[in-house]
Amino acid sequence: MISKNLIKLIKSLEQKKFRLREKLFVAEGPKVVGDIMVSKRPQRLIATRQWYEKHQIEEDVLVGEDELRKVSFLQHPQEVIALFPLPETSCFDNNSLRNDLVIALDDVQDPGNLGTIIRLADWFGIEQIICSLGTADAFSPKVVQATMGSIARVNLHYTDLPSFLENLGDGFPIYGTFLNGTNVYEQELSKSGVIIMGNEGKGISKEVERYVNKRLFIPSYPAERPTAESLNVAIATAITCAEFRRRYV
Amino acid sequence: MISKNLIKLIKSLEQKKFRLREKLFVAEGPKVVGDIMVSKRPQRLIATRQWYEKHQIEEDVLVGEDELRKVSFLQHPQEVIALFPLPETSCFDNNSLRNDLVIALDDVQDPGNLGTIIRLADWFGIEQIICSLGTADAFSPKVVQATMGSIARVNLHYTDLPSFLENLGDGFPIYGTFLNGTNVYEQELSKSGVIIMGNEGKGISKEVERYVNKRLFIPSYPAERPTAESLNVAIATAITCAEFRRRYV
Repeated sequence: MISKNLIKLIKSLEQKKFRLREKLFVAEGPKVVGDIMVSKRPQRLIATRQWYEKHQIEEDVLVGEDELRKVSFLQHPQEVIALFPLPETSCFDNNSLRNDLVIALDDVQDPGNLGTIIRLADWFGIEQIICSLGTADAFSPKVVQATMGSIARVNLHYTDLPSFLENLGDGFPIYGTFLNGTNVYEQELSKSGVIIMGNEGKGISKEVERYVNKRLFIPSYPAERPTAESLNVAIATAITCAEFRRRYV
Repeated sequence: MISKNLIKLIKSLEQKKFRLREKLFVAEGPKVVGDIMVSKRPQRLIATRQWYEKHQIEEDVLVGEDELRKVSFLQHPQEVIALFPLPETSCFDNNSLRNDLVIALDDVQDPGNLGTIIRLADWFGIEQIICSLGTADAFSPKVVQATMGSIARVNLHYTDLPSFLENLGDGFPIYGTFLNGTNVYEQELSKSGVIIMGNEGKGISKEVERYVNKRLFIPSYPAERPTAESLNVAIATAITCAEFRRRYV
C-alpha cells in the first residue's frame, strides 16, 4: 500500500523546485535503480513483491502493478520506483582536466538528448560533464530514465560556463563543433581537454565560442550532396567522443 | 480561418490508420515544410501571413498564432503546418546495394530514435532505409519533426526484413552491431552493403541475426571500466556510419 502523501511527493519530483526542496530524485525500473544502488542508498523504495524477492532487498513499500502505474512517470512501469538523495553540489577540480576529457554542454535543452549524452559519456569513460545554467536538469525523471543508469557513473556540474572556461586559464585545449570547423578526422586531438556541445537550435553561444581554441567539424558524405543542415547534438557528441577515443586505445 | 473538418483531419493524422486512409502526412515549421516542398507539392498549407509573405507562396489557409496552436502537434508551433501526400510504396532495387550503403532497422520502436536515424542517414548520404514491419512508422508527426527535414531526402521501405535479407542472396556484406562483435575500428569495412540496427531493448532479433556476416562492436573506453550496458540505437548507428564514411572520403 502506498500512502497519498508518498504519491504526492513522487509526483512533485517531476519539478526541479521540489527536487531541490526535498533533495530527492526519482529513478525507475530494475536496470536504472540497480545501477544507482551500486553507489547510493535509496531513501524510499516502491516495488512489487517480485522485485524485492529477486534482489533480496528488505521491503519498504510493497505495491501491485496497478498501484505502481499510479505513481510511475513511464508508459510501461517496471517493477520498481526509487527515491534517491540528490548529489551534493560538488566542486569541479580543474586538475582532473590535465588527464581527462570532459564534456561541457552549452544550454542543451532536450531531456532525451541530455540523457543520451550522459549515457554515451559513460560508454566513452568521460566521467565529468560541465553544464551551463541553461542546460536541462539531469535529475528530472525523463533524463534519469534516458541515461539507462549511467547517471550513477557520470558526475554533472552546473555552473556559469563562460566563467568556468575563463577560469581554466590558458593552455587547455577547448574543442567545439561548428559547421565551419576543421574536419575532425584531419585535426590533431589531445588526450585531455574540454569538448563543448551547443544548444539544439542555436549551437554554441557567442559568449562560449570565444573560449574555443580548436574548432571541429564532422564531415557529411559525399561532401557535395545537399544534406541535413546539421546533426542532432547527442549524435554529434557521440561521433566526436568516439573519434577522440579511437585515437588513444 | 481553419474549418472544423480540417482540424479534425489534421488531428486524425497522428494515427497511422488515418494516414493510410487519407494518404497524407503532417509536417510543421519552416525548415521541415520547406525541405519537403523542394520535392513534393503540399496538399494543404495552414500558415501565418508572415510565412506566406516571406516565402511568396499563394495563401491556402491563413491562421493566427492561436489557431495554429489548436492544430499543431508541437509544444511551440512554428508558422506553418502542411499536409503532404504519403509516398507511394516503392520497390527497393537490390542493385542499388552494389554501390551504396543501406541501413536496415529491425524493429526500432522509438519515434525520436527513428527520426534521428533518418537525419543522420541523410548527413552520411545513405539514401535508403529498409524498415522491418515492426519499426515505428516514419510518417508519424513525431518522426517527421525529428528528421528536421531529412525525410525529404531519405527513402524508407517497409518490408519483411528476414525475407528481404534472404532474397539478397550471397555475396552482399551484411553488418550488424553486437556486444560480442569485432571492434569496428579493426574490421575491414566495404564501400557498399547493409548495416542492420536492432530494437532498443532486444537488439537484433535471432531471425535477422542469421543473415549478418560481419559482426561489429563499438568499443567502450577504457575497456576495463564498468560502463553503460549499451549505446542508444541512434548513437550506435551514427558511430558506425561515421566510421564507414571516414574510410572512403
